[in-house]
Amino acid sequence: MRLADDEARARLAAHDHGVLCTMHASRGVDAVPVVYVLDDDFVGVPVDRVKPKASSRLQRERNLEADPRATLVVEHWDRDDWSQLWWVRAELRFEGAAPASFAALLAGRFAQYRDQPFDRVLLLRIVALTGWAAKA
Amino acid sequence: MRLADDEARARLAAHDHGVLCTMHASRGVDAVPVVYVLDDDFVGVPVDRVKPKASSRLQRERNLEADPRATLVVEHWDRDDWSQLWWVRAELRFEGAAPASFAALLAGRFAQYRDQPFDRVLLLRIVALTGWAAKA
Repeated sequence: MRLADDEARARLAAHDHGVLCTMHASRGVDAVPVVYVLDDDFVGVPVDRVKPKASSRLQRERNLEADPRATLVVEHWDRDDWSQLWWVRAELRFEGAAPASFAALLAGRFAQYRDQPFDRVLLLRIVALTGWAAKA
Repeated sequence: MRLADDEARARLAAHDHGVLCTMHASRGVDAVPVVYVLDDDFVGVPVDRVKPKASSRLQRERNLEADPRATLVVEHWDRDDWSQLWWVRAELRFEGAAPASFAALLAGRFAQYRDQPFDRVLLLRIVALTGWAAKA
């Protein structure tokens, strides 16, 4: 069942973890799990120093600089009761570095970010929302 | 920490739920949660009659017919203990309809599929694997 736009937005705001998809010029889609926070029409995705990375310059950032289109999928998964399933997909555009307020929002949401160990936070603007739920 | 190829494959085989990304000609990435089974170098993604859909012809199928590239991301998420996090990303190519054996594998994996209520199962070949874990 298709979710109304305001219901999709409410579920996106209540969540803080999903899969971010960006475009790689030759490989096609790159996709990676991320945490995020929502503020108005904007999603902030941290580039942090908590989860170990191969390099501080992430492929997702190179992708977004070359092609600003991104997609974030969040979902509720329940292996046993599929009547509880739902997901929301946000179509996004990369806007550059997020304001400092996003680091504070992330630190408020995740204890792991209490000391705000961010290299930076990526700012993405929501341009469209789609949502689905198994039941209304 | 980068996962070795065989370790990434083992984790993909042990799981059965992730996010499938396909390419939409104008919108860019389409991405949607899916269940799947693995058999050798192939992933089978059901188009079922269990989870209600807007139409039986899914956007993901139209996308794959126009552009066979797809990406499947599976992950272990743990909100509190980030030392447990890992994910695997499979780069895939759409091959068409899966053999009947995939419907049986899916029914063995999910009680919801015991009566094999499939319209069809999409067959995707693994062409590359990438994996990451917070600890070895």
